[in-house]
Amino acid sequence: MQIRTDLAMESRDCAEELSGVTSHTYRHDGIEEIQVVIESEEAARALNKPRGRYITLCHPAILHAEARERRALAKAIADTLGQLLPPFGDLMVVGLGNRHMTADALGSRVVESLLVTRHMMDVTEAELRTRLRGVCAAAPGVLGVTGMETAEMVQGIVERVRPAAVIAIDALAARESGRICTTVQVTDTGIQPGSGVGNHRLGLTKETLGVPVIAVGVPMVVYAAVIARDALSMLLSDVGLPQEEHAQAMDALIAKVVQNGLGDLVVTPREVDELVGRVARILADGLNMALQPRLTEEEIQWLSHDSP
Amino acid sequence: MQIRTDLAMESRDCAEELSGVTSHTYRHDGIEEIQVVIESEEAARALNKPRGRYITLCHPAILHAEARERRALAKAIADTLGQLLPPFGDLMVVGLGNRHMTADALGSRVVESLLVTRHMMDVTEAELRTRLRGVCAAAPGVLGVTGMETAEMVQGIVERVRPAAVIAIDALAARESGRICTTVQVTDTGIQPGSGVGNHRLGLTKETLGVPVIAVGVPMVVYAAVIARDALSMLLSDVGLPQEEHAQAMDALIAKVVQNGLGDLVVTPREVDELVGRVARILADGLNMALQPRLTEEEIQWLSHDSP
Amino acid sequence: MQIRTDLAMESRDCAEELSGVTSHTYRHDGIEEIQVVIESEEAARALNKPRGRYITLCHPAILHAEARERRALAKAIADTLGQLLPPFGDLMVVGLGNRHMTADALGSRVVESLLVTRHMMDVTEAELRTRLRGVCAAAPGVLGVTGMETAEMVQGIVERVRPAAVIAIDALAARESGRICTTVQVTDTGIQPGSGVGNHRLGLTKETLGVPVIAVGVPMVVYAAVIARDALSMLLSDVGLPQEEHAQAMDALIAKVVQNGLGDLVVTPREVDELVGRVARILADGLNMALQPRLTEEEIQWLSHDSP
Amino acid sequence: MQIRTDLAMESRDCAEELSGVTSHTYRHDGIEEIQVVIESEEAARALNKPRGRYITLCHPAILHAEARERRALAKAIADTLGQLLPPFGDLMVVGLGNRHMTADALGSRVVESLLVTRHMMDVTEAELRTRLRGVCAAAPGVLGVTGMETAEMVQGIVERVRPAAVIAIDALAARESGRICTTVQVTDTGIQPGSGVGNHRLGLTKETLGVPVIAVGVPMVVYAAVIARDALSMLLSDVGLPQEEHAQAMDALIAKVVQNGLGDLVVTPREVDELVGRVARILADGLNMALQPRLTEEEIQWLSHDSP
Repeated sequence: MQIRTDLAMESRDCAEELSGVTSHTYRHDGIEEIQVVIESEEAARALNKPRGRYITLCHPAILHAEARERRALAKAIADTLGQLLPPFGDLMVVGLGNRHMTADALGSRVVESLLVTRHMMDVTEAELRTRLRGVCAAAPGVLGVTGMETAEMVQGIVERVRPAAVIAIDALAARESGRICTTVQVTDTGIQPGSGVGNHRLGLTKETLGVPVIAVGVPMVVYAAVIARDALSMLLSDVGLPQEEHAQAMDALIAKVVQNGLGDLVVTPREVDELVGRVARILADGLNMALQPRLTEEEIQWLSHDSP
Repeated sequence: MQIRTDLAMESRDCAEELSGVTSHTYRHDGIEEIQVVIESEEAARALNKPRGRYITLCHPAILHAEARERRALAKAIADTLGQLLPPFGDLMVVGLGNRHMTADALGSRVVESLLVTRHMMDVTEAELRTRLRGVCAAAPGVLGVTGMETAEMVQGIVERVRPAAVIAIDALAARESGRICTTVQVTDTGIQPGSGVGNHRLGLTKETLGVPVIAVGVPMVVYAAVIARDALSMLLSDVGLPQEEHAQAMDALIAKVVQNGLGDLVVTPREVDELVGRVARILADGLNMALQPRLTEEEIQWLSHDSP
Repeated sequence: MQIRTDLAMESRDCAEELSGVTSHTYRHDGIEEIQVVIESEEAARALNKPRGRYITLCHPAILHAEARERRALAKAIADTLGQLLPPFGDLMVVGLGNRHMTADALGSRVVESLLVTRHMMDVTEAELRTRLRGVCAAAPGVLGVTGMETAEMVQGIVERVRPAAVIAIDALAARESGRICTTVQVTDTGIQPGSGVGNHRLGLTKETLGVPVIAVGVPMVVYAAVIARDALSMLLSDVGLPQEEHAQAMDALIAKVVQNGLGDLVVTPREVDELVGRVARILADGLNMALQPRLTEEEIQWLSHDSP
Repeated sequence: MQIRTDLAMESRDCAEELSGVTSHTYRHDGIEEIQVVIESEEAARALNKPRGRYITLCHPAILHAEARERRALAKAIADTLGQLLPPFGDLMVVGLGNRHMTADALGSRVVESLLVTRHMMDVTEAELRTRLRGVCAAAPGVLGVTGMETAEMVQGIVERVRPAAVIAIDALAARESGRICTTVQVTDTGIQPGSGVGNHRLGLTKETLGVPVIAVGVPMVVYAAVIARDALSMLLSDVGLPQEEHAQAMDALIAKVVQNGLGDLVVTPREVDELVGRVARILADGLNMALQPRLTEEEIQWLSHDSP
């Protein structure tokens, strides 16, 4: 039983001695930045993540931090995105997930706070227009609600709109509960099948969409089975029992403990409704800065009809 | 100043003696059904509506009616749709409008209550599967929120999904306040530019999408200028003043009365939040019956409530 | 037929020569401030408003204004409240209206963004605690939803909590559509029976609650009959007909034009959902400044867990 | 570390041999009904639940069940409530919890679907009026949002309204994940301090409110620590280690596994947003039947403005 995580840095932690993976850690403004690059196909298979760059920005106390620190994180997200985005052309932001399921609503919440400009190009005064980058956005919803694969809808829209790149926002599942709402992962590998809180059936990648796909995600849940398994592992090593021998028994036990008829049980903060709103606000601020580098914050706020 | 309405039956009422238009009225189950057919290009120009069939189903007290009467209206909607839909092939329902603007949220509200089946085709048991018609649905949002024309997004999705027809749901503007939430218009002419509460920039028609487009709409607002103009017209005829002489003065007066800096003022019921929910429920019931004629009501309810 | 308005400044405009009423106008920071004092019982009867002070702050373009101007209005609201509030003791904010009816949701929306502190008094560090004023807040809902008069519920809570004053927030009806979302009325006379978008059955006043009641309101609707009547009045005076003679005919006409079976029709901006959010934000900012004069804006934001 | 549960039947299961507790199990219509009566003070202390009657109605597959089975559960809830309610006098329903936190929103969601009648008594036609029981309802919100204890607000309102009994609806925490959304507990002991998903600071009981309090609750979460502890206990017994010796080590381990800075982590179904709506619907149906035994279902639906 391989415990699932959508964070490359957690996959790497489980397999530290792997070749074909490089990883660097930086610290600035209270933020820990970890850059993982998966270079070889072999490493990609071992970590169950495609080759590419994965940058995680982590601030363990971000949700209780002051405005200044939240802005620092938004700025770090903007800088990271800035390195991965193509320099010219319209951009399309896709908010993945189910807006009616709190733990999976991050994508559509970010889209709601985004400055969308593609339609302003003919109506805005010339001075401003030259400083705007064309941005459009959609939150297409999930298969169970639309009857269509998200990837199918996005492909159709991308073919019409022809953006230079797609930025996909998604709620993730992590391995450690401490990652929930405190860590942002930005990657140039797009969205993989099976990933996200919603377990996407099809991926959104350069291969499927024909344009680069940058994915931005934040863990919102840990699967309940992970909590149980961690507790058992620690105990076994504590009492000196060899884990390997008991692996099968452990998996059976966990299945027994977590079993239920309600779909997957997840571990999530009780206040997830409030937290998702705050995280979405930070992501939207970061995206707006990255996508509109020639606007001031005041202009972004004014154009997005934002309250003070 | 031509007062705008999205209802063909109101356009016809303003121009009764027109040739190239036929109209029939039926009554059943407390419902008044008016069938207007615009046959000539000349009539189409005069009424500012394209050639085609327009069926309105009106029940003045529907929102206070008992369950039995609401079901009768849903059934009448289903029967009307049944005449206009292609007999085979998947169908795609598009909920137009802005989900965050109550008077324009009808389309996305209907989509939320719709039985979507296209993705069940491989997972459902054989007996049921043979009785299901494939239905998918999207509520793409409006230009100001997405930066993309609704028509642009729908075109892209239709090209991927290739349904046999599109059914577009929209909130309408009417001329008479008594029409609000009491009248359903079904037409085979699709959605026209400038129509709807949201004044769509581009239309959704067979010409733009390549497949037949059936539009289903319910008036949610009357423009405030209409109320003012009606009051003036009545008074003028009452006191015996010729309306023609005063037309210009009237328009100036109305502009003065209604002027404001908040976008268009609309006349709407104070309880519009509650009403839109009830109307959406009736439409969704009607659509579900029309799109799944081989399912019982109990099966529709069971399948639509209940993704586990 | 006396046309109803909840704004004292509009009542006064309809009866300019009245004795027992004083009125002063100031201008600062783009805001027009009008102070109306109704001094005599006779004037109170004529204006259909109780004796007391009514301060209106009006900024016609506030919703399109920049952050700096919105803050200036919030500051002006805070200053006005500061003059009317008792200097010591806990304060209770009551958000009136129906949260599920957009045009009547202002009160509950303001309460959602308010810094509530009464429960922090034993848990906060001493330095901060000495600078906090105790504030509690409730949005009790409306008669049709609770089966209880709002006044009845507020009386019960006030008897338990014993605040030094109550601040009641409400959505108002105005006479001129230009007032919608642009004008804030603050008064020391509390909430009167029949007032507000929701037409409260019982008032909230010093007499009924036993503590001073400051009311803060913003017009969200104009009754549709007002628009019709204004159009008629202007026309009559334009064509030189004496209004008095036609008053009865006018009222009959208006009833005919506006009639409907859906409760009261109101004139409101199509974008009211978005506007109510922005207005609520400005009011909450003003209230927070007034109720917590010894906190910085940064501290208020941090304590209310507000996103940046 | 005593693992917490709000279900008396789970407390009893952990201490099977206790005297002073009786328990009976019945089965009807696919529902398992367990009646636990805690009779002695000693048993009350051992189970950490006050003396009184606790009836749980459990249908493990209720959320996937057909309409007929959901109605059977609603009917069983109505019958159980019918035994505990006073025969005459107005009733007040209190929806506890935080409407903005999905796992704690059950109370306010039930109140939204309840038929409220107390205000109809003077306006309804005589024939109907004699068959109505007066019901009022409030969802007062939580301490962190209002600055007031829920119990404080309810006391104030109860003193004004003087109902014959209070029915309090609350989201519960259980010990077994299989209980989530499948079990309804009805008790005549009211709401205890520390109980519920929201951990109420003060209780709502006959002692504090002066009238009988019937509590109706449904588990929405299991605390994450419970999952971890269960896994460990099972393993220890599996490998034959005595649990008592390792109790302290286990608690330390669990603290280590579950630790986080986000408040309590809970285990909950990923689809909790959808589930809470369905459970609220069943509870509201059950309450409406119990509180209005002289109305038909059709009348209840019609009076509560419910869609079919």
